This record gives sequence, structure tokens and C-alpha cells, in this order.
Amino acid sequence: MEEVKLLGFWPSPFVYRVIWALRLKDVQFDYVEEDLSNKSELLLRYNPVLKKVPVLIHGGKAIAESLVILEYIEETWPQNPLLPKDPHEKALARFWMQFGLEKMRPIHQAYFPAIGEEREKAAKQYQEVLKILEDQCLGDQRFFGGETIGMVDIVYGMLAYWFECMEEAVGVKVIEPSILPRLHAWVKNLKQVSVINDNLPHHGKLLAYYKTSREKLVSARSTLPTPSNHDAS
Amino acid sequence: MEEVKLLGFWPSPFVYRVIWALRLKDVQFDYVEEDLSNKSELLLRYNPVLKKVPVLIHGGKAIAESLVILEYIEETWPQNPLLPKDPHEKALARFWMQFGLEKMRPIHQAYFPAIGEEREKAAKQYQEVLKILEDQCLGDQRFFGGETIGMVDIVYGMLAYWFECMEEAVGVKVIEPSILPRLHAWVKNLKQVSVINDNLPHHGKLLAYYKTSREKLVSARSTLPTPSNHDAS
Repeated sequence: MEEVKLLGFWPSPFVYRVIWALRLKDVQFDYVEEDLSNKSELLLRYNPVLKKVPVLIHGGKAIAESLVILEYIEETWPQNPLLPKDPHEKALARFWMQFGLEKMRPIHQAYFPAIGEEREKAAKQYQEVLKILEDQCLGDQRFFGGETIGMVDIVYGMLAYWFECMEEAVGVKVIEPSILPRLHAWVKNLKQVSVINDNLPHHGKLLAYYKTSREKLVSARSTLPTPSNHDAS
Repeated sequence: MEEVKLLGFWPSPFVYRVIWALRLKDVQFDYVEEDLSNKSELLLRYNPVLKKVPVLIHGGKAIAESLVILEYIEETWPQNPLLPKDPHEKALARFWMQFGLEKMRPIHQAYFPAIGEEREKAAKQYQEVLKILEDQCLGDQRFFGGETIGMVDIVYGMLAYWFECMEEAVGVKVIEPSILPRLHAWVKNLKQVSVINDNLPHHGKLLAYYKTSREKLVSARSTLPTPSNHDAS
């Protein structure tokens, strides 16, 4: 059995995608915490291009980017499959994974550092995108993957746990049960899965981390010349 | 044999990714040109979420997003493989496909509508990213895929043909042979592949298209209030 090592950073939901996938497949691995303010030799050697976590090192060979790592894990350890077997269903799962990457990132970047009235506007835009995800992908299923969790659930895991802390830090909720009832139910379902529930960062620590990150972003914005101050995009 | 249909738009390099992959695998298909200013019922029905091309319809089932379509094609028609068999090498190829999506898009969006002195700055930023691609992925190989073209070459196809027209429209070159010699050689190598050379949009028409698109973007910028006018990001 070749050694499996994961370079991570404790609050990162992207790192948890990899942790969950490995645990769901019962793959033993060593976790190495990275200090991103003082990147290790290991990280710089194994991910010289992006210098980011997560990095998976398997038998001495490194793979970066969480979506790429998830595909590698699925291929290397086929037990407890995370993607559908049917090529068309698999393509749909990948479409929704890509949707998160493309559509949610700019909206998230507007929401998280938003202040004052901007926050409601940014939360509404977020809800509009999540409504598409709820309507077109989740529907009335227990999980995005159907009856059991799959790769799409893992990729959207941030919405299930990290999001509560982010909403609290921002002060405006996005996943309102009255607006996104099925996504709200999915959050509960996901947190009931033991592998997920047993592998989460500490809530209080995460909340403090997001509060500090947000304060830094907000104060960086307030030093910009106007009118960029009021440009939420 | 189930029917294969491709919804496309003639100047789109994303559509050509799919055309090239299908041609390289000798898959017969019907091409349907979309008028993106007046989207067809077919497009709205088959890609209701993004309403974009390319869309591949195989046996009545639709798949959107060019990277997702490429993976589907590779899996459905395994002849003339476009991805390496080795899982680690396959992960590296996917990493570089993702790199283009994440790193090049914002830089491209700064370069294409840039005016005056901004253009040189934006071109230099572009060159820095392409240098990483050249050094870390292409190296001294004939193609990104090695001796024959693969999925990474297909994904970066835009750099090989569309880019010349864009550079002419912007008026500042990015792929300078003195700065990016190996990428410059790769452009030549790719255009010598008959499937690529036989499946390209018309140069003059493409140049006119980019000139018009750029004029629209530049004039939209000039109607924005200052100082956003001078914000290239």
C-alpha cells in the first residue's frame, strides 16, 4: 500500500472535500497541517504552480486542485463510488461541480465582505444562484447524489457547515428555510452522515476565523478610494 | 448508432474544442449553428441553466460546458484517447485544464478590452501566466500531450488561432517568439495537425468579429463614470 499524505489548512472547505472522499472510501492517510502565512518546503515543492492546499501526495506523486483530486480518488479507489456509473449522469454531476466553481465564486466574493445595505443585495443574488441549484439539481432528493451522498454533495459541502459561520460573520442569512427549503433540508441530511459529522472543523474556531478574515477584507476595502468602496461586484 | 448533435456558434473556441475532439475520434455529428442574440428553443430546452454553447446532444440527452463534454466524449468513444491512461498523468492533464479556466479568464478579460498603455501591462500579465504554462506543462514537448495532441492541447486551442486575431484587434502581441518561444512553436505544431487545420473558423471573419466585439467593450467602458474607466481589473 503506497503512502497517502494530505497537505491541508484546518478552516478550508476545499481540504475537507478531500478528507471526506478519502474517509468515505476508507483510505488511510496522514494529514499535514500547513501554515499558509509561512508555506512549507513540502507545499512549495509539491504545488509549485498554485502554492495552495489541498495537495494529495500518493506514492510520492502530488496532485493539486480539489476537483482534480476528487476525480483521482474516485479512479484510484473505486470502492463506495462517488460518481454515477452512467456516462450521462456522470456528466451531469460534473456539470454541477463546474457550476459551483464558475457561478458561485464571484457571488461569494461579493457577499462575504459586503457591508451595510449591500449585504441584503448580495444575499439575494446568492439565493438566486442557489435556487437554480435547488430546483435543477437537488429537487426532492435527499442528497444531490440521490439516496446516498456523492461527489456533488462533497463539492457543495461548504454550504452545509462553513456557511452558517459565514452568515453569522456577515450578519445576513442566505440559506433561509422559507426561500430555499429543500437546500435547508439537505444541510440537515448531510450533517447526519457520520463521516461528515465526524470530520468538521471546530464551530467556534471557524466562526472566529471568518470574523477576523471578514474584518480584514472590510478594512482593506475602506482604504480604497471612492467610488470603488461602493462597488460590490 | 445514436444520433450526435452539437449546438455551436461559429467564432467560439469552446465549440471548436468539441468539434476537434469528435473529429479526432471519427464520431459523426450534425452541427447546428446558434444565433446567440436570438437563442433557439433547442438551446433553451437543452441548456436551461447556462443557455450557452457548446451543447452536445447524444441520443436525445444533453451535456453542457466544454470541459464536461470533453470528458464525456473521452469516456463514450475511447478510440484515439485524449487523456493519459495513468491516473497520475491524467490528474496532471486535468490540473492544467483547470489552470486555464481559473487563471487565464480574469487575465483575458483585462487584456481584450484594454486601451492605451493598459494594453502593454495586460499583455505582460498574460505572458507571465503563459510562461508558467510553457515552463511547467509544455516544456520541450511537441504537444502538451507529448508526441500527439491530447485534451490539454484541445483546451488551449484558443491560443493557437483565435489569439492571432485577438492580438491584431487589441494591437499588442502576447505570444512573442522571443518571450514564449516554446509556446510559439507549439502554435505552429498544432496548426499542422490536419484535423485542427481543417476545422477552423475563417480568419478574416474572425478578425472582423473580434474587432467589433472589442469596439463594443471599449465603448461600454467609456460610458462608465471615472475612475472605473481606468480600472483594468
